[in-house]
Amino acid sequence: MSDVRITPRGEDYSQWYLDVIAAAEMAEHSPVKGCMIIKPYGYALWERIEEVLDRRFKETGVENAYFPMFIPQSLLTREEEHVEGFAPEVATVTHAGGGKLEEPLVVRPTSETIMYEVFKDWIHSYRDLPLLINQWANVVRWEKRTRLFLRTTEFLWQEGHTVHATDAEADERARQMLEVYRDFAENTMAIPVIPGQKSESEKFAGALRTYCVEAMMQDGKALQFGTSHHLGQNFAKAFGVKYTDESNTEQFCHQTSWGVSTRMIGALIMTHSDDKGLVVPPRLAAIQAVIIPLWFKPEQREEVMKKAREVAQELKAEGVRVKIDEKEGRPGEKIFAWEKKGVPVRIEIGPKDIEAGKVIAARRDTSEKKDVALISVATEIPALLEDIHATLFARAKAYRDAKIVVVDTWEEFKAAIVGGNFVRAHWNGEKETEAKMKEETNATIRCIPFDAQNETGKCVYSGEPSSKRVIFARSY
Amino acid sequence: MSDVRITPRGEDYSQWYLDVIAAAEMAEHSPVKGCMIIKPYGYALWERIEEVLDRRFKETGVENAYFPMFIPQSLLTREEEHVEGFAPEVATVTHAGGGKLEEPLVVRPTSETIMYEVFKDWIHSYRDLPLLINQWANVVRWEKRTRLFLRTTEFLWQEGHTVHATDAEADERARQMLEVYRDFAENTMAIPVIPGQKSESEKFAGALRTYCVEAMMQDGKALQFGTSHHLGQNFAKAFGVKYTDESNTEQFCHQTSWGVSTRMIGALIMTHSDDKGLVVPPRLAAIQAVIIPLWFKPEQREEVMKKAREVAQELKAEGVRVKIDEKEGRPGEKIFAWEKKGVPVRIEIGPKDIEAGKVIAARRDTSEKKDVALISVATEIPALLEDIHATLFARAKAYRDAKIVVVDTWEEFKAAIVGGNFVRAHWNGEKETEAKMKEETNATIRCIPFDAQNETGKCVYSGEPSSKRVIFARSY
Repeated sequence: MSDVRITPRGEDYSQWYLDVIAAAEMAEHSPVKGCMIIKPYGYALWERIEEVLDRRFKETGVENAYFPMFIPQSLLTREEEHVEGFAPEVATVTHAGGGKLEEPLVVRPTSETIMYEVFKDWIHSYRDLPLLINQWANVVRWEKRTRLFLRTTEFLWQEGHTVHATDAEADERARQMLEVYRDFAENTMAIPVIPGQKSESEKFAGALRTYCVEAMMQDGKALQFGTSHHLGQNFAKAFGVKYTDESNTEQFCHQTSWGVSTRMIGALIMTHSDDKGLVVPPRLAAIQAVIIPLWFKPEQREEVMKKAREVAQELKAEGVRVKIDEKEGRPGEKIFAWEKKGVPVRIEIGPKDIEAGKVIAARRDTSEKKDVALISVATEIPALLEDIHATLFARAKAYRDAKIVVVDTWEEFKAAIVGGNFVRAHWNGEKETEAKMKEETNATIRCIPFDAQNETGKCVYSGEPSSKRVIFARSY
Repeated sequence: MSDVRITPRGEDYSQWYLDVIAAAEMAEHSPVKGCMIIKPYGYALWERIEEVLDRRFKETGVENAYFPMFIPQSLLTREEEHVEGFAPEVATVTHAGGGKLEEPLVVRPTSETIMYEVFKDWIHSYRDLPLLINQWANVVRWEKRTRLFLRTTEFLWQEGHTVHATDAEADERARQMLEVYRDFAENTMAIPVIPGQKSESEKFAGALRTYCVEAMMQDGKALQFGTSHHLGQNFAKAFGVKYTDESNTEQFCHQTSWGVSTRMIGALIMTHSDDKGLVVPPRLAAIQAVIIPLWFKPEQREEVMKKAREVAQELKAEGVRVKIDEKEGRPGEKIFAWEKKGVPVRIEIGPKDIEAGKVIAARRDTSEKKDVALISVATEIPALLEDIHATLFARAKAYRDAKIVVVDTWEEFKAAIVGGNFVRAHWNGEKETEAKMKEETNATIRCIPFDAQNETGKCVYSGEPSSKRVIFARSY
């Protein structure tokens, strides 16, 4: 058990974040600069993410595969914008098997290039389309400043890559996968997100356009939860990914790629956790309920343990992921430890509870405690978990919505950004304006929301005409 | 669908192996020398392996974690025998983020060194023990000659690492995990294996002793299916992995590591497959039964599809992993394609079958076909799958047992090895003898079987006394 004291958010937000991770034993820095060790409790969250998303991907027809993590340097450079985007942050293998390599190998920062070099041989005619591939893998992007989960040199992710006959179909797929991410964020992780499109400056290197879902952290900064790229024919042309259509004419394919990473765990921490430590949303939690058996005299142990196991069995039968804390130790310490680990529901069972035919259920999100009759544990605990999900989502959404500020002047804009808000403002659509606004405030366009209304307005920076508001914020 | 012609085993065994992989669309070579692409059908087998083994590991108390894939060179060199074993085959990152690294980073060939450097900080007292960690990851060993699944520069594996207070407990854990592998090989993959201990020359670099399970391929060569190492205190001393015992005395820990890899898929292919292509053992198969709906007139389609879906639903309810082949195409071609993919049971449903209240079930292992009454599909197909498992295992075991030859002279030994057999022979226990025997025959000691009887004999090579027979073979 960890005895880390958690710095309050109000005192030092960055330290709070690190303390929450340490106290919950989720991850730590490694002997390799910028790389993290994901400890069992943190990794169990990643396993749940994989499990849920993998099932959803497969439901849309996607299949998993595995491609090499090494990419010949010449392949990476094939698509011009792509290499410009990634070249500065790659790690390169120059020596192997005791000798120098003829051609250096790049450790994948993302796998478009190595995959599409192969897809071109897999696809011949329209009958081979669509091709729907996903890969769960580690990737490396050399980062100067790293933070556990949010930005690490090596991280774990999934990258989906699909190939289509038409532009419309590729766009539909890119949006479909973004919707999978949105649904997962909101309905599994209880994180409200804003779906939209990236500006030209912020889109993926090599994409036609990038769709994204953006979340707000408790300090008001944005975190890009997931992205889905409509690649158009850019890579298809660079790699020769072609098909012959039904009239036997050769056509370039239309492609998408989409991914989420261990970064989402950072979003989870910064959306739900509090000064007592981690708060895990119940639908994602690897442990949804922990049972703490309490006894005061050794002769009470057996009866309490027996009841604890009965309750666990009943909950398991209802599909609840439940654990009994059977370790020796003082109850107060156990309670404290599970609080820091953010387990949604804690169930305490002692001799007097058994006598009264009840248990005590404590929810992590609100700290409320209530008696639950033993006879209704199997219905009330699952209902409580669902209520915790709803409460976490509503709380995060209310918090976020209160911090989305509509501004119409540059002064208001700057003040709102400094105040740690998302800002909805008019913008003239120019890259240069965007760059200047970033220079002065460190805020970027997080997205052009799908639901942005057409409205006549003036760019807060240039005063030039604008047809819709976009969302600006500082970001992770 | 693939139209690869499969070379018969008798004609060219190596080509047969590659043809089986190509015809089943399991994997292919990549643009990076020595690295493979695992295609969806091959990857689905790996996912099933992960699923089954992961559950079994967790049942023994093991938890998953993730450690960086980069290892500082200085860490790798800490344990002397270990670095000697691995240094010649590592890949090294020298440049990253646009500059030269101060210290080169090795891409993990295995993770003992990076993990134990951290374990030393996780473990303080006997209360922190045992530590039971597993990792699913990619690793890199630079190989000169590679073969799909069997030996590739990058491969996927799991590596378990445990830390214990006593030598006895570490030995018990090493043997326990070997037993998990044996059970998985025989009872999930239907591959008979011989459990035993490696000789000093063949043990893992840095281990006290290595336990292994060895399988025989159809060409009589051995394939090491999995290994489990009792590391003793070698790494603990090199990395300072210590604990204070109950009397407050500092002690070095005792450790184990154990792993299996994508190599097992090579073992699966070479144990069960035939000249028609892949044969997948039913308990591992991602698709256990494929339903081929057959109709001759378009107006029959709906009725047949309806019945196919009903049968699929019934089988799913029984836990059978079933797929309906709904693609357009000629039935003969479909049957041929699924045969090459080795799906254990093929179910054909046509209008006449429906009229007669039956389906046709064809087993991949024996090519036998039989009628199964629609009313008993839900019981007969699962029973058929179990029978196929038993048949595959019995067939492989009979084949192997007939090719384990007991020899008492050097002439017999050489003839048996050239003939493609496992050889049970006396050996004087000397490294030098082992090396000379290998030099002359290319055979190595695969293992000293756990069930080897004590018997007085003479070493087939040196004529010196020996107390038990060990198993020699050529190997992959």
